[in-house]
Amino acid sequence: MAVQVAVCGPAKCGQREWDLAHELGRLLAERGAVVICGGHGGVMAAVAAGARSRDGLVVGILPGPDRSGAGPDLSVAVATGLGQARNSVIVHSGDAVVVVGGSWGTLSELALAMRRGGVPVVQLGDGWRLVDAGGRQVPGVRHARTPAEALDLTGLWA
Amino acid sequence: MAVQVAVCGPAKCGQREWDLAHELGRLLAERGAVVICGGHGGVMAAVAAGARSRDGLVVGILPGPDRSGAGPDLSVAVATGLGQARNSVIVHSGDAVVVVGGSWGTLSELALAMRRGGVPVVQLGDGWRLVDAGGRQVPGVRHARTPAEALDLTGLWA
Amino acid sequence: MAVQVAVCGPAKCGQREWDLAHELGRLLAERGAVVICGGHGGVMAAVAAGARSRDGLVVGILPGPDRSGAGPDLSVAVATGLGQARNSVIVHSGDAVVVVGGSWGTLSELALAMRRGGVPVVQLGDGWRLVDAGGRQVPGVRHARTPAEALDLTGLWA
Amino acid sequence: MAVQVAVCGPAKCGQREWDLAHELGRLLAERGAVVICGGHGGVMAAVAAGARSRDGLVVGILPGPDRSGAGPDLSVAVATGLGQARNSVIVHSGDAVVVVGGSWGTLSELALAMRRGGVPVVQLGDGWRLVDAGGRQVPGVRHARTPAEALDLTGLWA
Repeated sequence: MAVQVAVCGPAKCGQREWDLAHELGRLLAERGAVVICGGHGGVMAAVAAGARSRDGLVVGILPGPDRSGAGPDLSVAVATGLGQARNSVIVHSGDAVVVVGGSWGTLSELALAMRRGGVPVVQLGDGWRLVDAGGRQVPGVRHARTPAEALDLTGLWA
Repeated sequence: MAVQVAVCGPAKCGQREWDLAHELGRLLAERGAVVICGGHGGVMAAVAAGARSRDGLVVGILPGPDRSGAGPDLSVAVATGLGQARNSVIVHSGDAVVVVGGSWGTLSELALAMRRGGVPVVQLGDGWRLVDAGGRQVPGVRHARTPAEALDLTGLWA
Repeated sequence: MAVQVAVCGPAKCGQREWDLAHELGRLLAERGAVVICGGHGGVMAAVAAGARSRDGLVVGILPGPDRSGAGPDLSVAVATGLGQARNSVIVHSGDAVVVVGGSWGTLSELALAMRRGGVPVVQLGDGWRLVDAGGRQVPGVRHARTPAEALDLTGLWA
Repeated sequence: MAVQVAVCGPAKCGQREWDLAHELGRLLAERGAVVICGGHGGVMAAVAAGARSRDGLVVGILPGPDRSGAGPDLSVAVATGLGQARNSVIVHSGDAVVVVGGSWGTLSELALAMRRGGVPVVQLGDGWRLVDAGGRQVPGVRHARTPAEALDLTGLWA
């Protein structure tokens, strides 16, 4: 089976996050990876559009109980009916997890991915950062400036 | 987006159920439908194998927290980590639900599909039947003898 | 920790199911068991009312993302946001599962409880019955005519 | 129905987090609030022990498919079988969410609570903090130094 990469990010995003996610989707498709995302707008739509521009396979894991609200670039829409508990499904389905941008939902996915353990978690671009009580950055998440660097940091094509 | 059909059945099945599910998978792929299944063996493996024999797209919705145990004919494996609660995800992701054979897990999927409402639910072959206290068959589920008839009864290609 | 018994049934029920569920709730509370139910109306409300009439502890496992719709006799409302996938949570939380009456949601709970395995599953009163292709009743579920007999059949107080 | 407060924190914690969570549990029980927690050790066990020391009601929402691993001070154990997706159930069941200490699981609960919206989210003691790309603290979470202050910040007893 093909490599699967979960890409998470806010349902509303700016141009910079859109561009990063779109290019990430393109690169993933070019390498034959399946993209797993939340299936809605913003970063989710951008990575889907990028992947489809290279005939990639994109699976949207939706929070609602049916396919309404699914973005136009999904190959498949999984309607979970689980609400935000679907975030756990997204991060368990990736061989690596890449997050783009900052939002509470995105943070929950980053945290669930780290909690899961055993898979690389990469933050692409300027998202939220975590510091402990002493002001030190909490270790564990890998940081990438470009989509190509993000893919390198997953280690999936090393 | 393509039509999606959820196909449910036991992880262990006899030759007759295997043949029905395999042919169902072939027919679904030939019509361009995405197959959604539980991703394990038996009927799930048969419908996946049938669909892949026609280059169809097959999504396995797994109960476990990673992709271990995924069948070889899946295009994508969604690792839910939800245990049997993933049965609800399967039935919400289909524009129709077809069940083949009888088991408690399969029955839960049939019941959750009927509970969901609004989508056709078809039983293909000899599965378990429901009777009320008066011995009358509980209405709602459609019954098909052949895979072709099952697809007709979904009404998706009418 | 106290014994926990999951009681499942339709959100709309007749007088007979109401009476059975209410008496079941009373008996469970008198024996010190915690009642786990779906937290809505019909059989769920009846078992909750019966248990509370004896100062029992009743937990409602709700499908929605907040406590709206919770019945008045619950001690605690767990808002899952999972939709019908919450049925799996209900049946996993009982040391035994008792179903009263017939509906698709109730059937899914009975089936998920049998699929779980290892816990007694009792049908109280006249619900739906399962027959295989040969017309024989599918074995596994225990059948009780009265709430007292249902408790006996759980084996929890043997 | 009583007020319900979700309390989240790591399964392993130091003395300071234990003391804060234990006192928080005591105060919640004294005010008649039901405590919702993850049902395991560390902060979860501390808040449960504190609440039970005042005869409070404590519900543990467990990740596993049965009650194994449930702490000794729970009044009720809800076995979800959902893995870490159960974190979403915890935060939806509270009228307020209080987190104590830092871990990836705890962070996921804080983030899911903020994503849910509409309920106060309080961080008690020195947990992880979030900063945006410019180094500014991300707003939204309320910070308390003592359990009494945490309860004040929920606004539930104003």
